[in-house]
Amino acid sequence: MKTDKDYMQLALDLAASAKGRTNPNPVVGAVLVKDGVIVGSGLHRKAGEPHAEVHAFNMAGEHAKGATLYVTLEPCSHFGKTPPCANLVVESKVARVVVATKDPNPAVAGRGIQLIRDAGIEVEVGLLEDEAIKLNERFIHNMITKRPFVISKFAMTLDGKIATHTGHSKWITGEEARLHVHQLRNEVDSILVGIGTVLADNPTLTTRLPEGKGKNPIRIILDSQLRIPLASNVLNTSDAKTIIVTEKNVNPNKIAELEKKGVSIISVTKAENGLDLDEMLEALYNEGITDILVEGGGTVNGSFLRRGLINKYHVYIAPKIIGGIHSKSPVLGDDLDSMDLATNLEFESYHQIGQDLMIVAYPKK
Amino acid sequence: MKTDKDYMQLALDLAASAKGRTNPNPVVGAVLVKDGVIVGSGLHRKAGEPHAEVHAFNMAGEHAKGATLYVTLEPCSHFGKTPPCANLVVESKVARVVVATKDPNPAVAGRGIQLIRDAGIEVEVGLLEDEAIKLNERFIHNMITKRPFVISKFAMTLDGKIATHTGHSKWITGEEARLHVHQLRNEVDSILVGIGTVLADNPTLTTRLPEGKGKNPIRIILDSQLRIPLASNVLNTSDAKTIIVTEKNVNPNKIAELEKKGVSIISVTKAENGLDLDEMLEALYNEGITDILVEGGGTVNGSFLRRGLINKYHVYIAPKIIGGIHSKSPVLGDDLDSMDLATNLEFESYHQIGQDLMIVAYPKK
Repeated sequence: MKTDKDYMQLALDLAASAKGRTNPNPVVGAVLVKDGVIVGSGLHRKAGEPHAEVHAFNMAGEHAKGATLYVTLEPCSHFGKTPPCANLVVESKVARVVVATKDPNPAVAGRGIQLIRDAGIEVEVGLLEDEAIKLNERFIHNMITKRPFVISKFAMTLDGKIATHTGHSKWITGEEARLHVHQLRNEVDSILVGIGTVLADNPTLTTRLPEGKGKNPIRIILDSQLRIPLASNVLNTSDAKTIIVTEKNVNPNKIAELEKKGVSIISVTKAENGLDLDEMLEALYNEGITDILVEGGGTVNGSFLRRGLINKYHVYIAPKIIGGIHSKSPVLGDDLDSMDLATNLEFESYHQIGQDLMIVAYPKK
Repeated sequence: MKTDKDYMQLALDLAASAKGRTNPNPVVGAVLVKDGVIVGSGLHRKAGEPHAEVHAFNMAGEHAKGATLYVTLEPCSHFGKTPPCANLVVESKVARVVVATKDPNPAVAGRGIQLIRDAGIEVEVGLLEDEAIKLNERFIHNMITKRPFVISKFAMTLDGKIATHTGHSKWITGEEARLHVHQLRNEVDSILVGIGTVLADNPTLTTRLPEGKGKNPIRIILDSQLRIPLASNVLNTSDAKTIIVTEKNVNPNKIAELEKKGVSIISVTKAENGLDLDEMLEALYNEGITDILVEGGGTVNGSFLRRGLINKYHVYIAPKIIGGIHSKSPVLGDDLDSMDLATNLEFESYHQIGQDLMIVAYPKK
């Protein structure tokens, strides 16, 4: 005998399969159950394509009448790229709707649920809500803050080092963990690094997966003085888009040269220690970027940390000790006097990937 | 139906309960089984007390005849503080003996097994051997190297820092992890820190357990220039013994003052970057110290690392990010140019203790 929870879990699993593919939309899964049989199922695969409920109702046809709809996010009540799902729910004459969590989108925010209830259909909200919120953490953050969701990723030795004193870092983690990073890149809109990383490593910052089907995120380079060499790998915009974030009033000739290579330039105000990252995040969100994987180095990580701008951490720890007085640390930034001033996190999960350990953590609420 | 493995596991569990209590001896457990019934069981509780087999045979009495003996370490063949257990095994007329692993003690090293086999008793060796070796890793290391087993312990933030730029470190980890460290101290013969840690934190380095029954390990302070202030907490030898390791030819008056306080002094040769740690380990082993918990700081950890002297790591990782350009790292030492030169480890285990994560790792074989 399946329970409400089982069906909602199925809807969540359907939704999760599209993670990273629906931006700027949320991931959503829907399951229609009648007399213990799943009569319809669907998920939102991609922005512009039908919503999860539409697929489920299409499959169910007449069977939807009297069924229970399990949906991971409140059905929408507004006309976006598709008509409102809440109307469809009402027209389908389902007997009951179970919603995991409300849609934080101000254009919906309870109105979808209200519309269905007003039609006399029973609606329950909150089943597996924590899971549903986590699954759409990026979307929810976008809706509430109007900024991209920022993930900080770094790989370090067990003694907390990301490179030797010479900057050598190839490789800290093993092959499996490095592949995992490419899977992460495959799920985000953008990767961000500082100019120091570009000058030191000349990375391509593209997604390389064994099956070769990676989606290349947009590359964002923080370069307040526009020091980037024109031959840098990240300026090859046939691989992926590149945005350089710089101060206002930098060399217009260099800007012109970069734009000629297809690079976009975003100019933001100079802040005390670099660029105004808040202004930058707002500008990037307005460009349609919903999440950013910050890949360092230490100075960039420190700037994001001190401004409280990191929403999630992915830390890879290799079974290695490098030691050394001048080895590089993952997070720099202004010094704090007391340990009480540290940013408190909560470990979400930790597991071994190949030889390495991966820790996922969130800032403590 | 219990298997050989079940009984050996039981013997290992009995042995493990005395971990840290039998030094310099190994921990050993023994189980005697006849017709599916455990007729005897025992463990070695403390140096000077009977061996595990003696307890098991005492319990079994006449029932030992025809039984199977499961023992986690080869029965001894030499007269130590007690007569050889191998003789007792032969006299008991057991039908069969299952041994987890050979005794690496050169005074035994297969002779116990041979003596039993020569008496016509069947002996199997190697059941759950990996577990048995791990359980006695300290003893086996002692026997093979004639040196103490060295455990490096440090607690750091998720960005690999053990203190702020001011040296402030109270507290990085939570209460449960700090209690765990006291349980570790309770299991070892000695704790070692550098004079820097004494000057910065003036610690007592004693074992504080809630039930108040902690065993205080011997405190070893590396202090090449004998800079230790006479009022330091670690010089209160009513709490625990203290050994100061220093260079040869240091101030004899300071030595006299320290000895008057009950402190022991070990003088070793000056090495390139501090003291000759190999010479020190041999001297400490000759003083009867079988294991050392190295509690830092970074310079001491770096010296042990670069000389390849760490046998095990206990690393606590707190869900915190402190950042900072001058925050302190857990392991210093000479800088290495390339990541390929790092000391490779293997993660043995990782689990959450309260809010923190504890990783146990060994140098890769």
